[in-house]
Amino acid sequence: MAESTILIKDAKLVFTGETKSVLIKDEIIAEIDDVISEENVDKVIDAKGMILSPGFVNTHTHLSMSLFRGLADDYDLDSWLNDYIWPIEANLNENYCYIGALLAAVELIKSGTTTFSDMYFYMEDVARAIDEAGIRGVLSYGMIDFADAEKRENEFRENISLYENCNGMSDGKIKVFFGPHSPYTASKELLERVRQEANKYNTGIHIHVGETQKEVDDLVESTGMRPFEYLESLGLLGPDVVAAHAVWLSDNEIDIIKKYDVKISHNPCSNMKLASGISPVAKLLENGICVSLGTDGASSNNNLDLLEEMKFASLLQKVDTLNPLVLPACEVLKMATINGAKALGLEDEIGSIEVGKKADLILLDTNSVNMTPDSSDLCSNVVYSANGSNVDTTICNGKILMENKKLTTLDEEEIYKKARIAIKELKEMN
Amino acid sequence: MAESTILIKDAKLVFTGETKSVLIKDEIIAEIDDVISEENVDKVIDAKGMILSPGFVNTHTHLSMSLFRGLADDYDLDSWLNDYIWPIEANLNENYCYIGALLAAVELIKSGTTTFSDMYFYMEDVARAIDEAGIRGVLSYGMIDFADAEKRENEFRENISLYENCNGMSDGKIKVFFGPHSPYTASKELLERVRQEANKYNTGIHIHVGETQKEVDDLVESTGMRPFEYLESLGLLGPDVVAAHAVWLSDNEIDIIKKYDVKISHNPCSNMKLASGISPVAKLLENGICVSLGTDGASSNNNLDLLEEMKFASLLQKVDTLNPLVLPACEVLKMATINGAKALGLEDEIGSIEVGKKADLILLDTNSVNMTPDSSDLCSNVVYSANGSNVDTTICNGKILMENKKLTTLDEEEIYKKARIAIKELKEMN
Repeated sequence: MAESTILIKDAKLVFTGETKSVLIKDEIIAEIDDVISEENVDKVIDAKGMILSPGFVNTHTHLSMSLFRGLADDYDLDSWLNDYIWPIEANLNENYCYIGALLAAVELIKSGTTTFSDMYFYMEDVARAIDEAGIRGVLSYGMIDFADAEKRENEFRENISLYENCNGMSDGKIKVFFGPHSPYTASKELLERVRQEANKYNTGIHIHVGETQKEVDDLVESTGMRPFEYLESLGLLGPDVVAAHAVWLSDNEIDIIKKYDVKISHNPCSNMKLASGISPVAKLLENGICVSLGTDGASSNNNLDLLEEMKFASLLQKVDTLNPLVLPACEVLKMATINGAKALGLEDEIGSIEVGKKADLILLDTNSVNMTPDSSDLCSNVVYSANGSNVDTTICNGKILMENKKLTTLDEEEIYKKARIAIKELKEMN
Repeated sequence: MAESTILIKDAKLVFTGETKSVLIKDEIIAEIDDVISEENVDKVIDAKGMILSPGFVNTHTHLSMSLFRGLADDYDLDSWLNDYIWPIEANLNENYCYIGALLAAVELIKSGTTTFSDMYFYMEDVARAIDEAGIRGVLSYGMIDFADAEKRENEFRENISLYENCNGMSDGKIKVFFGPHSPYTASKELLERVRQEANKYNTGIHIHVGETQKEVDDLVESTGMRPFEYLESLGLLGPDVVAAHAVWLSDNEIDIIKKYDVKISHNPCSNMKLASGISPVAKLLENGICVSLGTDGASSNNNLDLLEEMKFASLLQKVDTLNPLVLPACEVLKMATINGAKALGLEDEIGSIEVGKKADLILLDTNSVNMTPDSSDLCSNVVYSANGSNVDTTICNGKILMENKKLTTLDEEEIYKKARIAIKELKEMN
């Protein structure tokens, strides 16, 4: 499948509506023009009538949790974690996390996501799955010490070993960040050392911050500071930090986020489903803060479809601000593409359709009912009307991972079977 | 395609998870059992592993507006109407409305909706499209008089003639309601006469109520009453009234809705996208009020996918009330099925899988990534993870309208072509 040159012919560029052809050489976008010769091209994709978009970037998820899809819905967060998720997570192992990541990779590819940022356990097995799938990923180990020094040492060993074994693998498509879970599960000592290690390894930090009001209240009670104030006081913040959720924010915290150029991963479906709250995204964007999109894990969403997440993001802000002008379609599409790339420090490589960038590209079929008519703003159809099933072709790093809605790297039937067995076994253990 | 008996074999019932077979004789569900003999059955559908659900009921939409999908997004309601929708609607005619309704019918069938309630113009042409499509519909003519007596006469002529020509057509699948547009576009005289005519013709009323705060404020200013108080004072309310939107409600209005058993059609995507506001649905349901779901027209959504609408409905209430327990998956699925049937006075005929009811049934494919694993609550997968593309088979009134995702009554490619031409012509007229 490793074509050295691919010509995407006559696609409509999503942001401009222009019809263009795109030549991919190895992993790079080599040329964008009205007409490009087919001579000496290994593979031609006739994209007439299709929409060409940068592949989507999902900046906060937990791939292996796809095994828990639909396992425990409509509970409050406490019962969800204590009675369902934590007991079943206690039985996870390398193989289950590998299968869960494969299942998630099928969903990502099918719904047009070419890059994700994950935080979970058994991450080397996630790396193995992702390498097979051929997508791009930033992996971090979810570090939780609950103020226990021995546990803390173990967490650093895990994340550093993940870095040493996996950073740069899969032709450079896999990168490793540090993953301190959150200010309420990681100690002051852990958070301070994370900054030192991130600097030493010259890599980023992925952390949950300000997801629920309770978390904020508890921290204010114990430290007198709100989450971003607390993280500032520990010296953790910087432009290499991706803070997931950021639902409950004071004006001072918004100033801090702006000052340190912290990147926000907004997860509207998860925040709505778990009733966490509504992040003030319109205000963050007004302040020039880089907000990208994440689906969170499939067990609190319950899918990994960024097309759906874009619609939720836009519509939730419109109704929350009672202003239909906020988060217009094109801006939301940028959140799911170039802003995601910026969050992960990959904006020179991916996130837009430009000569010299890596070819992470998707084609959406417009000859389907929810995309008809397509005579107006293409961003509108993509953000407000499309769903994952409209993605026809997914290319990552110049390699075709799906064409005509058929996967090329993964055997989906086989993965579904294994996923069903895995969750059955996990349930039986409880 | 008119099989007289159809056997759906070994499907999983969505609400209970039980595996059952269902025998359809002509238009009726004749038998539901563990095993049903295939002898003398005209058509057998092997539904092993598929989920069987009642067909969805969309209680508020404007089918022909599907032509305007993506035409004008991210504007405020005033510019949207004045600068885009009204100018283009002025050029609508029989043919355009027919084509728009066909396009919408394709989308409804493909996403599992078997019954809809529409309010628009050229409704006899909508009836013609729906008769070809084979789905069930309640049609009403959108009556607007702006206090002009001559216009009012015309509106009644239109709606009554629609009733006389179309009520009961298409083997009884098409019914006609009266469609006074809203308390702010229809005069007191129009609204009072609507109740008389509805009683005379023994049919229902479909009306927009309380969609925006401005509409409520204006009515309070001119009459001293809020919309449902005003409609009560005119004697319009009753169990045969479907009130769409009902976003801005006082406690007294909730009491009135309950007292008269008015049926509410909740349209979360449209209310969010146009930044109208959040209807207090959890509170309405707590009060025992019948709340069903509508997509509104595709130009303010931008699709007609009730699977997506269910997820929006549930998640929006959870985050608005900060309570993850409200609107659990099964309750939302009931809103989209039996509550919709009740709203349209069809609960004895459709809305659930019961012997003796009309066979309005759909099958969802579980062998797809967003439905895997499917080992837990089926309602969860349907409401939180599925999208329209997971619908495999759609049956209405005992007739198969889609099987293996292929339509049987409509030529979708042909309809897409006609829809593209129609919107192109309409735009050129402006």
